[in-house]
Amino acid sequence: MIVRNVRSRARFRDDKMGKADLFASARLFAGLNAFEPGQEHQPHTHCDRDKIYVVLDGEGEVTIGDETSRIRTGDLALAPADVVHSLRNPGPGRLVVMIVIAPAPPPKT
Amino acid sequence: MIVRNVRSRARFRDDKMGKADLFASARLFAGLNAFEPGQEHQPHTHCDRDKIYVVLDGEGEVTIGDETSRIRTGDLALAPADVVHSLRNPGPGRLVVMIVIAPAPPPKT
Repeated sequence: MIVRNVRSRARFRDDKMGKADLFASARLFAGLNAFEPGQEHQPHTHCDRDKIYVVLDGEGEVTIGDETSRIRTGDLALAPADVVHSLRNPGPGRLVVMIVIAPAPPPKT
Repeated sequence: MIVRNVRSRARFRDDKMGKADLFASARLFAGLNAFEPGQEHQPHTHCDRDKIYVVLDGEGEVTIGDETSRIRTGDLALAPADVVHSLRNPGPGRLVVMIVIAPAPPPKT
């Protein structure tokens, strides 16, 4: 499977962070999170799952455990399994990140 | 863990494709492959492991199963578990790709 210009698959929403799936198997989930200025992904953890953020466009403020850091296009952040993490877009531009989670989270019911 | 400017971690070699590790756990491996013009990663498979390529810089020719395609900066290619795949840099520029494999391959002995 080839996905051209991955960041163009981002889906923004006015009311909250937008999500777009790229690929999912039991082993791995890949998708995009899209943040308008001021939007955020609230603190959460993934039980027994590692997560990578790759910033495809823009600049964000990521918190992993008790560490908060600015990340921008071309940077990567890793949230190891069971470590609380969050991401917000302080603006003024849009923010697009690719996320990879392994193993993939269970389907939402 | 934060990695600034991921593509700057690429390590090129004169004799063959260069590799650099970014992160490894049992669940997930992330790293960089760096290709000088003319270098390639020979056809291979990962048993029970999915693999993602994300092109960070340059242009390459990827083969997944019986499909060969050009991919360039910002594109993603997925090689599902047990599907033969390869990647080469036809040149003239350098090629840097991030790879994510889940679950992680066993350590080399």
